[in-house]
Amino acid sequence: MSVPDTKFILIQNVHPSIDGGLHPVKRRVGERLMISAEVIKHGHDEIRAAVQFRKAGQRKWHEQPMSCVNAGLDLWETSISLDEIGMHEFAIVGWTDHYANWAKDTRKKLNVNDNVDSDLLAGIQFMDHCGERAAAAGNHGAAAHLHQLAAQAAQADNRDTKVHFLMNHDSIAAAAHWPDRDGYETGRSQAFKIHVDRKRAEFTAWYEVFPRSCGTEPGRSGTFRDVEKMLPYIAGMGFDTLYFTPIHPIGLSKRKGRNNSLTTVHGEPGSPYAVGNIHERHENGGGHLDVHHELGTLADFDHLVAACAEKGLEIALDIALNCSPDHPFLQSHPDWFYRRPDGSIKYAENPPKKYEDIYPLNFECADRANLWREICHMFLFWARRGVRAFRVDNPHTKPIVFWQWCIAEVHKEFPDVVFLSEAFTRPRLLESLAKIGFSQSYGYFTWRESKAELTEYFEYLNQSEAAEYLICNVFPTTPDILPKHLQNAPLEMFKIRFTLAALLSPCYGFYTGYEHGENISVGPRDELMDSEKYEFKVRDYSNPPLSPYVALINQIRRDNRALQQTRNLRFHEINNERILFFSKQVQGNTLLIFINLDPSNKQAGLCRVPMRELGLSTGHSYKLHDLLSNQVYEWQGEHNFVELRPDEQCAHVFRVF
Amino acid sequence: MSVPDTKFILIQNVHPSIDGGLHPVKRRVGERLMISAEVIKHGHDEIRAAVQFRKAGQRKWHEQPMSCVNAGLDLWETSISLDEIGMHEFAIVGWTDHYANWAKDTRKKLNVNDNVDSDLLAGIQFMDHCGERAAAAGNHGAAAHLHQLAAQAAQADNRDTKVHFLMNHDSIAAAAHWPDRDGYETGRSQAFKIHVDRKRAEFTAWYEVFPRSCGTEPGRSGTFRDVEKMLPYIAGMGFDTLYFTPIHPIGLSKRKGRNNSLTTVHGEPGSPYAVGNIHERHENGGGHLDVHHELGTLADFDHLVAACAEKGLEIALDIALNCSPDHPFLQSHPDWFYRRPDGSIKYAENPPKKYEDIYPLNFECADRANLWREICHMFLFWARRGVRAFRVDNPHTKPIVFWQWCIAEVHKEFPDVVFLSEAFTRPRLLESLAKIGFSQSYGYFTWRESKAELTEYFEYLNQSEAAEYLICNVFPTTPDILPKHLQNAPLEMFKIRFTLAALLSPCYGFYTGYEHGENISVGPRDELMDSEKYEFKVRDYSNPPLSPYVALINQIRRDNRALQQTRNLRFHEINNERILFFSKQVQGNTLLIFINLDPSNKQAGLCRVPMRELGLSTGHSYKLHDLLSNQVYEWQGEHNFVELRPDEQCAHVFRVF
Repeated sequence: MSVPDTKFILIQNVHPSIDGGLHPVKRRVGERLMISAEVIKHGHDEIRAAVQFRKAGQRKWHEQPMSCVNAGLDLWETSISLDEIGMHEFAIVGWTDHYANWAKDTRKKLNVNDNVDSDLLAGIQFMDHCGERAAAAGNHGAAAHLHQLAAQAAQADNRDTKVHFLMNHDSIAAAAHWPDRDGYETGRSQAFKIHVDRKRAEFTAWYEVFPRSCGTEPGRSGTFRDVEKMLPYIAGMGFDTLYFTPIHPIGLSKRKGRNNSLTTVHGEPGSPYAVGNIHERHENGGGHLDVHHELGTLADFDHLVAACAEKGLEIALDIALNCSPDHPFLQSHPDWFYRRPDGSIKYAENPPKKYEDIYPLNFECADRANLWREICHMFLFWARRGVRAFRVDNPHTKPIVFWQWCIAEVHKEFPDVVFLSEAFTRPRLLESLAKIGFSQSYGYFTWRESKAELTEYFEYLNQSEAAEYLICNVFPTTPDILPKHLQNAPLEMFKIRFTLAALLSPCYGFYTGYEHGENISVGPRDELMDSEKYEFKVRDYSNPPLSPYVALINQIRRDNRALQQTRNLRFHEINNERILFFSKQVQGNTLLIFINLDPSNKQAGLCRVPMRELGLSTGHSYKLHDLLSNQVYEWQGEHNFVELRPDEQCAHVFRVF
Repeated sequence: MSVPDTKFILIQNVHPSIDGGLHPVKRRVGERLMISAEVIKHGHDEIRAAVQFRKAGQRKWHEQPMSCVNAGLDLWETSISLDEIGMHEFAIVGWTDHYANWAKDTRKKLNVNDNVDSDLLAGIQFMDHCGERAAAAGNHGAAAHLHQLAAQAAQADNRDTKVHFLMNHDSIAAAAHWPDRDGYETGRSQAFKIHVDRKRAEFTAWYEVFPRSCGTEPGRSGTFRDVEKMLPYIAGMGFDTLYFTPIHPIGLSKRKGRNNSLTTVHGEPGSPYAVGNIHERHENGGGHLDVHHELGTLADFDHLVAACAEKGLEIALDIALNCSPDHPFLQSHPDWFYRRPDGSIKYAENPPKKYEDIYPLNFECADRANLWREICHMFLFWARRGVRAFRVDNPHTKPIVFWQWCIAEVHKEFPDVVFLSEAFTRPRLLESLAKIGFSQSYGYFTWRESKAELTEYFEYLNQSEAAEYLICNVFPTTPDILPKHLQNAPLEMFKIRFTLAALLSPCYGFYTGYEHGENISVGPRDELMDSEKYEFKVRDYSNPPLSPYVALINQIRRDNRALQQTRNLRFHEINNERILFFSKQVQGNTLLIFINLDPSNKQAGLCRVPMRELGLSTGHSYKLHDLLSNQVYEWQGEHNFVELRPDEQCAHVFRVF
């Protein structure tokens, strides 16, 4: 019978942690992370606990004491500040405070006038041991102090003086710094991970364009230079990320025509998702490491990246791991694709849909290691050109472990790269991609319409375990999706859905034309007619009807820190099913927001402001500044009346002051 | 950049599991365990999943297929039967069903009249691969069948015949038996543990006695032979476990007198928790491996164990890891104890309380390995004498990892041993002891009085995660605890608290004298006066007032399987705060139970029977047989009236038929 060598203190229910520490919790730089754990020792001893944390790869742990916030539940807590982007790790340690135990027991005996002679002898020994540990750790000042206390207690000729030297508050605190943490009466948890992203992973506004549609001449591709001309407009609306559909060369073979036609007429540009063209003149191989020659050169791209930076904008690239029949991989690595028994390479299909212009890659092929590395290098190629945000097309159709590996590799060189997962898929798969490394994900907002649906979905995003690792980049539409409620809908509905996205989520975006209230018609099978995926578009950006409103909302987002983070959203009561009432609050910034979900009718209701939860003094009136109308209201008590007319304003955004 | 060698299918949220698989889930032999997990593969492939399970230590895994119960949530489920006592383990495996994927995609194409020539060629190849795997596994019959199907499809001269051979239901099922589970498109979870106890770990009724009080002569110790005379009475009341306070020799030095007095008068027996006496004549060393000479010999003990077995009773021993100053360890292993600086050995104290008659063991001493082994051997010593249940005194003041090790060691030789943890302590510590191996635990029932308190506590025991590993042995009183509601309480109150214990929990017990309504007076500091811990008692067992009722309730428990397991307890609505209404249900046995919590007044109320949840047809009346009064009622619909008079019966125990 061999006796185990296990420490005596159990540490469990470490929070936050994802799947028992398998995946990192996610936060953004500058935040504080609250960490709690149950630290359990048998019996009734005084124990201490601390969080040890470090950046992944570093040797030295920093240590921060935890406080016992509920002794009956063995619950300990502290918060640490996250000052650096990248992967971090932490562990909880617990140990017995033998000196404090001794002092506690001796105090009890003194209180009932028991003899403590033997206890005081023990205390002197304990104090000397603390001094020895201080000396061993090289702190000779502390060692001398502790030994002196012990000697003073030993030399004192009466009980009360001995008690004073050993048991005054400062003595006990001095001893507590040098506990015995090597013995069995200690414990340490496994390590847990935290991934710290840059702030823009959480607080950001994306504006999506097809760069080829940024020109002014119908039927001709716009260029990166044309995009540069739009930057003042985009930055002026308050966006910080300019999100491009794929910019790579497009295949000629099997190119799709307008409305996904199997044939093209001359000059049709094809879908930018059919990546790769070795046939036309391209400067860097014609695949994923290249730009479409009609957009410009790689140098033009670099110029654009710099021009964006001047406006506070950055480029997000849409990376679709598809190859057209003309992609260079078909020649260099035909073994990276799926083959039929007749030797032909399989195109993508989801019967009855066929994507003859796209060949999917086989991530499980015999040469998978080289394929995986090639794709990873592609992300690094663009990151080295200054791209710090990638929207990944359909990541959920590639192995999850591929992304886990690839994102970690990219983060080694560029820890600030943000990956957005376009995973319109089953919730557990969507979540898995967020857990293993994607900073942001597309989600289901697009189809959440009623107050109940919106409440349930945003409570999931803000208050469930998912909030620890999932940031949803909320889009009211995409080039592929125009939800039912926006089909043939009035401009007011576009305004409502935009307001919801931008105020419910710190992270949102929309696809150009939204500010025009562009109501693309929908064909059979819910496919959008005249989709920009298959043709050039030219828009008039001189005066889109929603632009000023978009600029105002984005300004409000920048001015109010409460709107810049997830997890602080709370829904509240109002007796009208068409009005959504929620608050966003951080220290010093409290917003009460009411949005009328009805684009056609005035809606009104009595709301209940949870004054106590929001820290409002229930005895006093409070002022509300409507940041949309610039009006000021004075409210009293919890119950108040709200009315919203769609023709005037679809929302109140009250700042409480 | 090295590419990881990780499988592609993720398996997560395996249920049930405790702390991510760190601790075993607990069940009893004969039960089925429902197991669920999320099995996630990227994309839209058809996958399969199974549970693999085995007894710990065995090599071969048994495999049982899981069903996908919610494809949108990637949720899979199955149940396994637990046929053997001891530790078991299981893991979840998932793999891609390539053949089914091929068939699904080909079917879609056929449905839209696409050309499938190339697909059928692929299908023939897939089918041959399945045949090769069958051959490799040694199943030549299956291999021949699969190759034949492939050959028939290849030789057929038209599409429909090929489709028939490859895609009829039987062909697809035959291929599904031989998937490729070696490639990357598979996954396997870690192993999770299940500890299977014997049935009596969950369904049991304990009767606690001080064996020395089973005599008939005042002031003299009863003997094991006297206990034997009581067995018909105890078994007649329907108990199955006879629970003894410690039976070991008791120290003479510092022996406590009546009412915990520091001095004894001649003939006072001392506390049986001060274990060990090398001074008086004992046959086996006078410590924990011995019995008190006044109770009899070890042979008498063996005789008693056999006599119990004849009555369907078993002995549970109370093991207190305390040593009196006269324990043999003080001589043989003085280094196992705590010492003061003056060299004296420390007695137990919790100032201002002192336990001068008890020396605690130091589980962290330098020679800890030998101490731990000695204690483990002590449990084995008694197990080898036929004891299969131990109540451990104050386990929460010893290292949790000691118990984890010790219980596992005992279970190696005696997997059917039940350990009851007397851990009246903080909830997380109590739970930890259950997680690491104790089959049962004392709990907080003793202090839960109101309907709200009882509901909350028993929902915790039956429906929270704790129900996966914690069985509470519910005692209305103990020799140390007479809760406020039983102090000076009428017999009706004893009846109510017993009824609650025995019907809310399949696992309960009481301390002798309860059936007498013994209302020991309570002294200052809530200590029980004239506690049996310090003196001999003699009771008249000829006609205790509650015995017939106890026998009836225990008979009802034996007759109704619904009362024999935890986790099937559900509380229901009744509009009276003094009536507790709950159901217990298993297949074929449904009980509706109403208990009047008021010992003095009639209570009545309108209840709501959740007919649909209980599987009662809402359109029909249903009959209720009151197993206490033997009356039959006929009820209609959900809402019914109940009235209970304490002078008649404190409860209805309705069997629905």
